[in-house]
Amino acid sequence: MFEAAELHRTVSKKEFEAAVPELRTQLLAAQRRLTKSKRQVIIIVSGVETAGKSDVVNRLHEWLDARGLSAHAFWRDSDEERERPRYWKFWRKLPPRGTIGIFFGSWYTQPIVERVYRKTSKADFDREMQRIVFFERMLAQDGAIIVKLWLHLPKDEELARLGRKSKWGPEAKKYAAHYDRFASVSDRAIRSTDTVEAPWKIIEATDERYRDLTVARIVLEALEGVDRPIPQAAATPASQLTGPTVLDNVDLTKTIDDDHYDRKLSKLQKQLRDIAWKQWEEGQSSVIMFEGWDAAGKGGAIRRLIAPIDARIYRVISVAAPTDEERAQHYLWRFWRQIPRAGSMTIYDRSWYGRVLVERVEGFATADEWSRAYREINDFEEQLAEHGIALVKFWLHIDPDEQLRRFEERKSISWKQHKITEEDWRNREKWSRYAEAVHDVVTRTSSAVAPWHLVPANDKRFARLEVLRTVVDQLS
Amino acid sequence: MFEAAELHRTVSKKEFEAAVPELRTQLLAAQRRLTKSKRQVIIIVSGVETAGKSDVVNRLHEWLDARGLSAHAFWRDSDEERERPRYWKFWRKLPPRGTIGIFFGSWYTQPIVERVYRKTSKADFDREMQRIVFFERMLAQDGAIIVKLWLHLPKDEELARLGRKSKWGPEAKKYAAHYDRFASVSDRAIRSTDTVEAPWKIIEATDERYRDLTVARIVLEALEGVDRPIPQAAATPASQLTGPTVLDNVDLTKTIDDDHYDRKLSKLQKQLRDIAWKQWEEGQSSVIMFEGWDAAGKGGAIRRLIAPIDARIYRVISVAAPTDEERAQHYLWRFWRQIPRAGSMTIYDRSWYGRVLVERVEGFATADEWSRAYREINDFEEQLAEHGIALVKFWLHIDPDEQLRRFEERKSISWKQHKITEEDWRNREKWSRYAEAVHDVVTRTSSAVAPWHLVPANDKRFARLEVLRTVVDQLS
Repeated sequence: MFEAAELHRTVSKKEFEAAVPELRTQLLAAQRRLTKSKRQVIIIVSGVETAGKSDVVNRLHEWLDARGLSAHAFWRDSDEERERPRYWKFWRKLPPRGTIGIFFGSWYTQPIVERVYRKTSKADFDREMQRIVFFERMLAQDGAIIVKLWLHLPKDEELARLGRKSKWGPEAKKYAAHYDRFASVSDRAIRSTDTVEAPWKIIEATDERYRDLTVARIVLEALEGVDRPIPQAAATPASQLTGPTVLDNVDLTKTIDDDHYDRKLSKLQKQLRDIAWKQWEEGQSSVIMFEGWDAAGKGGAIRRLIAPIDARIYRVISVAAPTDEERAQHYLWRFWRQIPRAGSMTIYDRSWYGRVLVERVEGFATADEWSRAYREINDFEEQLAEHGIALVKFWLHIDPDEQLRRFEERKSISWKQHKITEEDWRNREKWSRYAEAVHDVVTRTSSAVAPWHLVPANDKRFARLEVLRTVVDQLS
Repeated sequence: MFEAAELHRTVSKKEFEAAVPELRTQLLAAQRRLTKSKRQVIIIVSGVETAGKSDVVNRLHEWLDARGLSAHAFWRDSDEERERPRYWKFWRKLPPRGTIGIFFGSWYTQPIVERVYRKTSKADFDREMQRIVFFERMLAQDGAIIVKLWLHLPKDEELARLGRKSKWGPEAKKYAAHYDRFASVSDRAIRSTDTVEAPWKIIEATDERYRDLTVARIVLEALEGVDRPIPQAAATPASQLTGPTVLDNVDLTKTIDDDHYDRKLSKLQKQLRDIAWKQWEEGQSSVIMFEGWDAAGKGGAIRRLIAPIDARIYRVISVAAPTDEERAQHYLWRFWRQIPRAGSMTIYDRSWYGRVLVERVEGFATADEWSRAYREINDFEEQLAEHGIALVKFWLHIDPDEQLRRFEERKSISWKQHKITEEDWRNREKWSRYAEAVHDVVTRTSSAVAPWHLVPANDKRFARLEVLRTVVDQLS
């Protein structure tokens, strides 16, 4: 594959100087169009060690407008990064819409390096590459323009450059000894991640002028793609439900008497307190997530859940409208940014499932968007699970009559009045469409690592105990 | 001081249950008013170890709306936190306007603990308390309502509780042995930070119902303060300049010939490259900041500065309009959030001085706001310096004729046309008012740790060399 980048192409100083003014003008004009668009550009700068990755980034800083341009390196993980799934550090640096983000040592670095030194198997490596393909496609479908640059040097050139030591960082020489192995692993990485949404560009980097002009032209071409349509997956057709949904199987007659409730609640809360402290000491995190009908009792269940836990350990996140920084990113970004450090318990009152529930039913997301979200969510939860984060997902289920009773009650209790709005009444009318959406959510995202728990909640107290019991059970 | 919190006050179950419904209604109503305001509430929960701080936070979660409520604990610094000035971890958790942030183990914890164990002197401790007073006043003047709760237990009660071990976290028992010393250091902390803007409330915590009702009433009172005027310092009168400004002392005739320029530039860039690698290896950070007239050559100087540096080490931040998350915070917040990790070099194209330059001249900040900003900025820079971050500040100076020449030139060079806007022409007309503002900046914020460098920039190349020379000099 690298043969095409060993053709000894060069650009003379004269050619270079003749080409630059026009190129800069075009780059700046294209960047200004990007600024006004809803798209973001991700430039991955990778390649062999002495090919001038840093020089290329400096050149882009020189030719582009520094406003709306950020560059990020990933060479030492902080403990905050180590305490979270591996992709967290990339998510936190993704450029907002309208801007350009340059990534050194992107998501490719670790899989390649680990494979070169045989710390991972070929199967692990291939699996990582598939994760990358999925990740890049997800970003591309969200509007990201992804430019992947691979700067190549022939072996003799690379070794000669490493001989001239002083300029290169501490890591460089180590790689030299493994040139061939790096080349073959990189070749495999490039082949398996060279997609329509995020194609690789291999650049002959021996001649600096040729390299810089080529990079600039590739970046220009990418920037000019801002007006082209965003690649979309064919939407999976929505299920055509006619029969019962999974919610019809929930036994809403379940109930509990006062005496049992108090005793069991107190017992479960004590267990949970001990579990939370233990998790804290062991650095084990958990995410507990609540979805459910309006007035199903999410708030009450959450309050009983946190009551016994030291308030320094848990955090309750009520999902509200995204901020503009959040809207400038993929919809999962705001959930990634909230992933807790080790030992914490994060409780979500509503969650990333909004994409396939309210956004689907209300039409805030297109069919393309919500139908691909199931897989995006499964992948997200899988990454949490792989990192050892326990995930417990609840749907609190009530029937329409019980909801009506609670709405009426809310109107009459002073401190509950704020909880009932016009919107709640409107949502009620879409009951069956929400039920369909819930059915799809449960059947498509109940995985072994993150199963759904459908909790009968017509009896609030039964539901609270059931929630506590499930959490204690899952976290033990 | 704690005697007033040893009066054995209690609330019966009956009284408690009678009071709660009304109180919850009021709390929720007040919280909704806060949501719509431009103010934020900071609740600091502190006090002796077994007084129920965590229970109080749980109670607030129960009685308030979890939307717009966040709680933060600070008990293990991450390396990302250790690599930055101590207050960084507090700044990153400050609640946005319209919301409530609960702080456990706030900025008080470390100074108190260190003083108890005599790791710091009394003078150090007092200085820390003064920093706190300044910090809290700054937030209060920005609209923050600060509630500081100190939960108190008499000594015998505290020791009895610690005897009943299991419930308390690992740290608690260690404190018990030092009860008296903690009491006296805390007493001093409270006295010296009990201000009009951020008064302390000492709460007798023996009886849980009394404690929780009292806390809720204090929080309610604070929330209801949302409509009261924001405390303002008397504005320092603007200097009445009639004579020359510091800019008049800058020798704009300085120039350099081509030959010297190329040789010196290349020599300085080599030095800078070595310095940057060395700083990286030693974990030494630096911040290099550029202010200056429009068209003074900031961009060009920055490009020559970064050219020799490995792109993984530096980051260029062009200060543009704040995002809504940034506008929901004190104006310094967005600069705090960008403080680099150890070993990095951050280059600012424009900076926090916008507050006392453009915002002052254009009237975007009130006289109150910009005139107190000098001290806020000095304090901010002092914290950077104390943490060992090198700070180099440049004002690139040109005269109005040279500016006009460059504006005209920009109109005629294709890739520079985007750099010249109507606004630039308008700013030109306010030259003398900007000059006054610059004079005030230089005289009021040129400190020993962060002096200003006024660079003659009528000759661009002279200015670039001067910038490089100064950076090399300051960072060596």
